[in-house]
Amino acid sequence: MPGPTSYFDPAAVDALTPRTADLVRRRAAALGSAYRLFYREPLELVRGEGARVWDREGVEYLDVYNNVPSVGHAHPRVVAAIAEQAAHLNTHTRYLDEATIVYAEDLLGTFPGHLANVMFTCTGSEANDLALRIAKAATGNEGVIVTHNAYHGVTAKVAAISPSLGGMDSLAPWVRTIDAPAPGVDLGAAVVVAIASLAEAGIRPAALIVDTIFASDGVFPDAVGLPAAVAAIHAAGGIFLADEVQPGFGRLGRSGEHASLWGFGRHGLEPDLVTLGKPMGNGHPIAGVVARRDLVDAFAARGRYFNTFGGNPVSIAAAQATLDVVRDQRLPEHAARVGSALLAALRELDDPRVGAVRGAGLFLGVDLVDGDGRPDEVLALDVVNALRGRHILLAASGPDNHTLKIRPPLVFDEADATRLVTELAEVLKERA
Amino acid sequence: MPGPTSYFDPAAVDALTPRTADLVRRRAAALGSAYRLFYREPLELVRGEGARVWDREGVEYLDVYNNVPSVGHAHPRVVAAIAEQAAHLNTHTRYLDEATIVYAEDLLGTFPGHLANVMFTCTGSEANDLALRIAKAATGNEGVIVTHNAYHGVTAKVAAISPSLGGMDSLAPWVRTIDAPAPGVDLGAAVVVAIASLAEAGIRPAALIVDTIFASDGVFPDAVGLPAAVAAIHAAGGIFLADEVQPGFGRLGRSGEHASLWGFGRHGLEPDLVTLGKPMGNGHPIAGVVARRDLVDAFAARGRYFNTFGGNPVSIAAAQATLDVVRDQRLPEHAARVGSALLAALRELDDPRVGAVRGAGLFLGVDLVDGDGRPDEVLALDVVNALRGRHILLAASGPDNHTLKIRPPLVFDEADATRLVTELAEVLKERA
Repeated sequence: MPGPTSYFDPAAVDALTPRTADLVRRRAAALGSAYRLFYREPLELVRGEGARVWDREGVEYLDVYNNVPSVGHAHPRVVAAIAEQAAHLNTHTRYLDEATIVYAEDLLGTFPGHLANVMFTCTGSEANDLALRIAKAATGNEGVIVTHNAYHGVTAKVAAISPSLGGMDSLAPWVRTIDAPAPGVDLGAAVVVAIASLAEAGIRPAALIVDTIFASDGVFPDAVGLPAAVAAIHAAGGIFLADEVQPGFGRLGRSGEHASLWGFGRHGLEPDLVTLGKPMGNGHPIAGVVARRDLVDAFAARGRYFNTFGGNPVSIAAAQATLDVVRDQRLPEHAARVGSALLAALRELDDPRVGAVRGAGLFLGVDLVDGDGRPDEVLALDVVNALRGRHILLAASGPDNHTLKIRPPLVFDEADATRLVTELAEVLKERA
Repeated sequence: MPGPTSYFDPAAVDALTPRTADLVRRRAAALGSAYRLFYREPLELVRGEGARVWDREGVEYLDVYNNVPSVGHAHPRVVAAIAEQAAHLNTHTRYLDEATIVYAEDLLGTFPGHLANVMFTCTGSEANDLALRIAKAATGNEGVIVTHNAYHGVTAKVAAISPSLGGMDSLAPWVRTIDAPAPGVDLGAAVVVAIASLAEAGIRPAALIVDTIFASDGVFPDAVGLPAAVAAIHAAGGIFLADEVQPGFGRLGRSGEHASLWGFGRHGLEPDLVTLGKPMGNGHPIAGVVARRDLVDAFAARGRYFNTFGGNPVSIAAAQATLDVVRDQRLPEHAARVGSALLAALRELDDPRVGAVRGAGLFLGVDLVDGDGRPDEVLALDVVNALRGRHILLAASGPDNHTLKIRPPLVFDEADATRLVTELAEVLKERA
């Protein structure tokens, strides 16, 4: 099964400590066989703060993996906002709530003006699912174009456009895939080919949807062909959906040139729909769709939308506190600075097994390769588990599972970056 | 558009107070046209406690509508559990977390033994969506049978089996609908017909899915034909999915005869899949699927499942506290007692416009009818808004929008029930 290489093998349960083995067995019995655990030796975490987490024995780990607690684990402002609102009231969007309106206006202020509406869901999966419903209602079309190893969520609809999930016998007839924007790939031409292929099947395109950091494809921050791809989907009557669930809320860094919290801003694009999720409430389940008003109107003409928990006052409080911290602590600028230093340090690693190193802000990918420069999944798996042994948490990803995925909480600092690079060099040296 | 009749008409914004009008306009500008607000005069709520909520001016309302804050608005045990866990750590199911396992075991203990696995999502929509993916993987079939005015959620997949949402040009080719179990309806025969209709289209049934209180169909607690319907779907190779998102967690009451937190227990059924949602975390976004292990195994053979926020430690803390309160405060028994008295009192209302009164526990439906006994949607709308004027919150529902839907927080007590019946009688008298 494709996917991250870093999962626990259930057959190895007997090698664990008695307590861990007991928890793993009870968990498998109750949660069933579709769940996975990270690492050869699963990790039982009990506390977090900033970019650090602690296990049950009090051992501290540097978190280089979790992009959800974006402003830092258990950030006191977010925790206080949740606790205070929960103690007052938690209802839903069919009553008026001033804070929800204020947050919606605040959030929309970070987008280009043509993106005038926001709709709230609980997960990125729900956001992408709703966005596809909107795209279909607005265009009247069915076809969807995604990258080869795309991941856009786990509802039936978005799992069908997420080849990285594995388990697909074949793509749905209304889906076409294109290459991720590795060097030499012409994204615009690829979209033209995909549209032609849909047309041969009598299907017109509703949407081109891309994660603007191409995370599950192996992290590609410089998608030079993306404007041409967007032009092609527009010319064919489809819309462009920027999936910002992973790159959004400032992770890709911000400088004068890219004055945006959003990945599409780096590429100089103006999407028709944008989906948000993971870091939006720093771990609290809130996500959403930002859209052109005319697209929402086309959707609304066919039916209302109500998500029981989506945009409830407690979720909104978590999201507002998170957005406030992102700005007040200038985390996009911080991510740009630390990420840039980390990228440079990783590229200076003097080891032929370190292949391409790509990244923007605090979203980086490091390819590990064998002597012939080919993807080395086994090495990547070893490195991930060896780093866990050194109390550094990350994972491997990408279509060949050989890309170390580096996307820590945004409070990750220069000293953390130095520690990561030093330990990675040590782990590689041990395997020389 | 079908659906609850109790929405605000955006054209009436000028009649509102300046503050409310301003909020309504800003909300529409930011959230767009797919959202709705309750009542001719929308309500701005700021606080809740037990079965009561307060608006911005400090006016108190009796909440007869909100089934999500099931153990009472802002229940201190649930609030404390959320605040404490959020201050420690919020991660996900790829690390070990003892409390998640304990909750899963505790929850599964309330189900028949053949339902051995639970998988966590954030919303009931996601739960039903996942359940349909499991049913398809396990049966290899596509067909789904639901009731005529079913509501099972808002993802693309489950919206397609939710005719009550409106806006459908036609049902998907893999969906068939059956009558809700009003008196005289033979559910078993209806399912046989639906299966035959699918077969004519070359489609085999994956699942029969019913909300076990048939809420959106108008509240039908006594579905005498349900066992025959389940037998029919099983005979055709499909599975039976009990949607407990609304009736579950004790709302339908518990007595010696029906010693279950679940609606399917009232009907003496053993479902293959059960979906949970709304009251599970008393408003915190958590939901789930409870399933036969072999069904989960069939799904897992095709791919893993990971929901970023689903089953995170904070959501689990909310769910555990909620389940603890349901038991410690004996809320199912309370719901049975208060609901039974309320049902009797409503049936004693001496007014020909009160038609059938149905219910189980604290989930009741009251049909309002005209002089010829026909559904009176206009009257229902008037009554809902008049009760809001008397500081009592409920809504109308059902296929003809003439059924008052009564489903308060479970702490709603005898005095609350008396007040509701008294005020309803007054409101009807005013319109005599």
